[in-house]
This record gives sequence, C-alpha cells and structure tokens, in this order.
Amino acid sequence: MNVELITIGDELLLGFTIDTNAAHLARTLASIGVSIVRRATVGDDAAEIAQAVREALDRTGAVITTGGLGPTSDDRTRPAIAELFGRDLVPDEERWDALCALWRERGRGEIPLSNRGQIMIPRGATVLTNRHGTAPGIWLEDEGGRWCAMLPGVPREMRGMLADELLPRLQGRFDAAFTVVRSRTIRTTGIAESKLADVLGPLASGVDGLSLAYLPGQEGVDLRLTSRGRGGIEADEALNQAASQLRELISRYAYGEDGTDLAATILQACEARALHIAVAESCTGGLLGARLTAIPGSSSVVLGGVIAYSNDVKRGVLGVQQETLDAHGAVSEQVAIEMAAGVRRLVGAEVGMSITGVAGPGGGTADKPVGLVWIGVDVQGTVRTHGSRFIGDRAEIRFRSTQAALDILRRML
Amino acid sequence: MNVELITIGDELLLGFTIDTNAAHLARTLASIGVSIVRRATVGDDAAEIAQAVREALDRTGAVITTGGLGPTSDDRTRPAIAELFGRDLVPDEERWDALCALWRERGRGEIPLSNRGQIMIPRGATVLTNRHGTAPGIWLEDEGGRWCAMLPGVPREMRGMLADELLPRLQGRFDAAFTVVRSRTIRTTGIAESKLADVLGPLASGVDGLSLAYLPGQEGVDLRLTSRGRGGIEADEALNQAASQLRELISRYAYGEDGTDLAATILQACEARALHIAVAESCTGGLLGARLTAIPGSSSVVLGGVIAYSNDVKRGVLGVQQETLDAHGAVSEQVAIEMAAGVRRLVGAEVGMSITGVAGPGGGTADKPVGLVWIGVDVQGTVRTHGSRFIGDRAEIRFRSTQAALDILRRML
Repeated sequence: MNVELITIGDELLLGFTIDTNAAHLARTLASIGVSIVRRATVGDDAAEIAQAVREALDRTGAVITTGGLGPTSDDRTRPAIAELFGRDLVPDEERWDALCALWRERGRGEIPLSNRGQIMIPRGATVLTNRHGTAPGIWLEDEGGRWCAMLPGVPREMRGMLADELLPRLQGRFDAAFTVVRSRTIRTTGIAESKLADVLGPLASGVDGLSLAYLPGQEGVDLRLTSRGRGGIEADEALNQAASQLRELISRYAYGEDGTDLAATILQACEARALHIAVAESCTGGLLGARLTAIPGSSSVVLGGVIAYSNDVKRGVLGVQQETLDAHGAVSEQVAIEMAAGVRRLVGAEVGMSITGVAGPGGGTADKPVGLVWIGVDVQGTVRTHGSRFIGDRAEIRFRSTQAALDILRRML
Repeated sequence: MNVELITIGDELLLGFTIDTNAAHLARTLASIGVSIVRRATVGDDAAEIAQAVREALDRTGAVITTGGLGPTSDDRTRPAIAELFGRDLVPDEERWDALCALWRERGRGEIPLSNRGQIMIPRGATVLTNRHGTAPGIWLEDEGGRWCAMLPGVPREMRGMLADELLPRLQGRFDAAFTVVRSRTIRTTGIAESKLADVLGPLASGVDGLSLAYLPGQEGVDLRLTSRGRGGIEADEALNQAASQLRELISRYAYGEDGTDLAATILQACEARALHIAVAESCTGGLLGARLTAIPGSSSVVLGGVIAYSNDVKRGVLGVQQETLDAHGAVSEQVAIEMAAGVRRLVGAEVGMSITGVAGPGGGTADKPVGLVWIGVDVQGTVRTHGSRFIGDRAEIRFRSTQAALDILRRML
C-alpha cells in the first residue's frame, strides 16, 4: 500500500523547476489506495540517485522515480538504478527502429544519435511504453519482489505513462480496499476564506467525521472534504451528504465541484439556453477569451470578440462613444457598458462581456488606482455591471477580472 | 549556510496543491549562498508539525516552514511550534486594530472573529510583516541560536515576506561567500532537446567546469549553466563566457536569457522600431493577446485585435473572403494570410499576427488533423506564414501556436 517517491533533477533541487509530478502522483495513487509515505528530491548525480533508491528499497521496497530518462548527458537514472539492481544495459533495437520511424513521421529528419541512450534497457526489465514522448519508462524488480518504477520527468509523458502502464500494474498488485482516501472539492468564488468559515459556522472545521480544508487560490476558495479509512461506497455516501449540507449554506458562492472550471460551467449554462458569447477585453487583452476557448467544444458557444487595448479600437471597432471616453475615462462603468453592447452587436451574439481596468503596475492614479476594474455583462439587452478593486500583481488582477466577469454571468443565468 | 524546509498542509501531502513555494525558496536562498539541504512535507496535524520541526532543529538548527498560518481551523503551525519552543501565545492587539482597519479599507465590512487566531503570537517571537495578506509570519529563536521562521503558504504572501523580511535577516546572519551557486539560462525555441545536444557537440555536457542542464518545456528548451563553488565575480565571468560560446552555436534558436519571456522580447524589438501589433486569433481564442498584454507596458506596442473563433467573425469583422474559406477551409495558409492582413487594416497596426488551427481534442480530419496550425505574420505588407503540426493536448497546442507565432515575428525583426 505504501510507496516512496524520488524526484530526480538538479532543476528540482535548485528550484528551477516546480515539481508538479509529485502532486499528480500523490493524488492519482491515493485514488487506488496507494500512499506516498516519503518524498525525496535528488540531483542529476548517479551516486545520489543510487543511494536514495537503495534507502527507499530497504525501507519500503517500493519506489517510483521521475526524471533523468532523457537523451542528454544529465540524464543518469537508468544506468544508476540498473547498477544498483546488478543489471547491465542492453540495446533494444526494435525500439530504436520504432523511434526512428516516429522521428521521420513527425517530419523532423534524421534522428540524432544521442537518442540511442534511451533504448538502453536494464537486462530483465519491463519496458513501460511512452505514448507521449521518446523516453521509455522502466520497471525493475528483484527476486525478493522489491521494485522500482522509473517514469520520465516531463509532466505530460509522466502522466500518460502513469495512467497507461503503472496504475494497472499497481492495481493488480495491491489489495487497495481498506485505506481508501476520497475527497470532494466544492469550488467557491467571490468570498474570503475567513468569511466562508463564519458562514459555515459549526461545520467550519469538518462535517460528520470528514475533514474540511480551505484552499484559497486566485479562482476563489476551494473547500475540500476528505474521507479517510472508510470503504469506497461508504466514503462516497458521506461525501455526497456533507457536500450537499455545505452547498446549502454557501449556494451563492459555490459554482462547481472538484476540477470544474468556472468557464466550463458558463459554457454549459449558455449552451443549454442557446446563448452565444462575445467578449470585449481591454486590460485582460484576450485572457477571458483564452479561458473560455481553453475548454474543448467551446466553439458552439463562443463566437469571438475584440481585444480593445487602445482607445482607438474601443471607438473604431466597438463603437464606444468619444464623449463617453472623455466624460468618464476608459476605465469606467459607462465604457464597460458600451463595450459589452458594442461587441454583442459587432459579432451578433446574445451575450456580450466586457472588462476594462488598470492592471498595473503602472498607470494608476488616485482616482483610478491599480486594480480598479469595471466589468459589463449584457445578456440580450439586460445589463449588469460591477466595479472592483482587485489586489495582487498584474497577473492576479487580470485573472481575477476574468473570474469576476464569469461569475457575474453565472449569477445572471 | 544550511537550512531545512518543511512545507505544511494536507493539500500538499495528498497532492491537491502543487508546491511552488519549495522551488521559489530554493532558488532565492541559493542566490545568497543558503542551501536547502532537506525538504519534508507534513499534513495539518500539530503533532506531525512539531515532530518534523524538532528533528530539523536537532539536525540543522535552522528551519523554514511554509503554510498553516491562516485563520481557519486547519491552520496549526503557530500553536504547534510555539509549544515546541515552550512559549505561550499572546494576542497582539495593535495588530488586531491594523487588521480591522485593513478590512474596512478594502470595503469588506466587519472582520470575521475567526481572524483573531492570526494575531496570537508566541511570547518573545519576532513578527515578520505580511504586506500582501493578513497572516503575519513569525521568527522564533531559542537560547542556543536555533531558529524557525514561519512563512504563510499562499505563494504571493510567502514571496513578499521572504523578500521583505527573511532574506535581509538571513543575509545578516550568514557569511555567504564561499558556497555561491550561480546560474545562467539560455532560452531556445523551435529545436528539440536531442538536436540541441547534437548542435552543441563537445559542449553538450558542460562548458569549462560549468554544468549544463537541458530543461524542456512548452516554451522550448532552456539551457541552464550552473557554477558551483566559485566566488561571485569569478562565477559571473565564467558564466558570461560560456553563455556567449553557446549562443554562438545556437543563435538561430536562442531568444533570451534567464526569465525572459519571448513576448517581452518581441515587445522590446517592436518598440525600438516603432511598430504596433494587432492579433487575429482563431484556435488560440485570445491567448496570444493575453500573453503579449501580460507584459507590463505592453500598451505602447499592442493596439488590440480580434478573436475570430467563428467563420462569421473571420468574414464579417476581419474581411476574410468567403471564396477563400470555401476553397481552402478555415485552417489554411490563405486564411491565415487574410486574417493577418485584415486585422492590420482594421486596427491600423504595422504588424498583424494570425493563428488558425485545430486545437482538438475534437474537430480533426485526415486532411486537417488535430494539432495542424497555420500562422501568418504580416509586417507592413511583408508576409511570412508557417504551417505546423504540434503535438500535445489542447492547452499545449494552443500555447505552442502562440510561441511559434512570436518566434516567426522575432526572426522577421
């Protein structure tokens, strides 16, 4: 049930790369009842890799590594662990032919010889197929049943190999019934963490033996309920019940569960009502459009929009009146209203969404400080506006503006 | 010179939150010669927190924690470590008044009482001011000089407190001369990791005693040179020299150093030539505009653009010809050319950039598979186009499209 995780790479140790693999592995393994009981990070050094894996094998007998399988000279995982298991490396010529074919198919010309390192496989190892890249993964096991699974460090490749190759293998190996950890996350936006706790009152620290965590982020505060030690069905029931209890108290702020993106919620609601969206963005410069169109299938709802960064574009393309700009300035409720109406008209959409603001760090005045943002949402002529002063840096102010705009539309639908 | 890092939170242990703080801390501390020699992650449990901190104090005597300082019941760092140091918690009423004032100033009404937990300070501790949030940090030190610095878990707050409060304190404490780790990163795009190694030849595994790491990401491959053990001036000289050697070999692919964003490079080059940019985006839906306008000061170069997600918008707003759409389809070189020219005309910009493609996962055909993207860049009537088949998921295909578009413009300037 327990495994240790060793993430490999100078870039991790020195902090040049953020370790997203550890989180993904922990979450995915927990869902089948496998716990990561210890996590270590070592650099691209054969001796350090071997030592860390040896210690973990001695303690837990089950090790997953990520990283160090690439074609370049700083990739040392394969030889280091092969030596630890007392295996030599043998070339897998079939794999080489496949690699050459893949390279040609992608139109990248002759494959560099430095890729040959990737087909050197420890004798007796099982290859874990990489459907998303060129570095194969490796499963090595000794006579005593102690094992080490080597996954690549590139997140997309690691995730694919975990799902395709490692999870089925582990599920076959473990009886995963009795330490199931299950969670349910309720996503909220437009309310502070401490205020949420106040609204939840006696449920603020947990519901019915389930723990409750507050995870603030730029999208809002996620509430995570976690069940430990219950069986799978019992856990799901408890989570369902607790989630409904919480949602009842905070329905105004809750927009979805688990990984739901607010943009996806909006697209579903619009599709159900046959509404199409057009966006008019000033300070966010396309970010709202980018968030909406990040969702697969968004083309049935999103028609397009205008990035009206300069006032000329606000006037010339969106039809914002010069007098409105003169009287109220570009960052104003009135301009937000005209932008939303203008883009609806231009694109021929039922819904127009506009954002105009001061994202900073420069450009703020006493009257219109950095963080001031006006949002307009026009649904078939019904207009709602919202002025906020967001805190944070440029990226946060921009992101929060898109989140607020989406939330206004959500409440209107 | 050595410290241990303990990151606190169920969400980290279970992988619900990605630990970006560890990387930022490692990198920032390394720059002043302080090494994180061990990293541990524990959950929101007072006993576990206390045990991890006790062990680290015994080993290294210097501990930084992140997380668990918030106002809610799952935030247990402060009481756990106070007890470990044998200190009781006393309310800091001055801080409470300041917190109430801040809350009012932001127009958020009466402050919830649950925030009072945040002003309970261990007796004799030094408060580390939080300019970006409500949770103060804490510095606790015992008679033997062993210390623990508690920072918040929210990245923006942690980073601010690290820069404002902890770094100056540590710099005063350590003589940081002799274990300096310095790095220089050369950013490349449009070339695969293994091909880069081939081009670099004998320099592929390091230059002049400096290690060379290959860090592939969706922006391209970063090459990181690292100097260890040299003095500061000597390290900088060696890095400068090695970086020029590498750049000479890969000048076609190298667009900048260290944290440079390709979009920022483009904006500088355009500003120097008094060129203004307009974007016309189909499958990227605003992402190119969002990337360009993410850079502070971009308004002097970026005028705006059109998100032409539907064909109606391509025709009606950008002036793409119906015949062109009929003859070649929306994802074609010809449509990319007309989009770039159309947005230049509409917005009145010297530079028009267009992207049209199949981002997937649906919508691909044998003829126009998922990942096929056409890019057009029109600089004052000089047009360059580029057709690619990008690999990856929807988000990667979209991001890589924007990166390729920016790179085409970079090479044209």
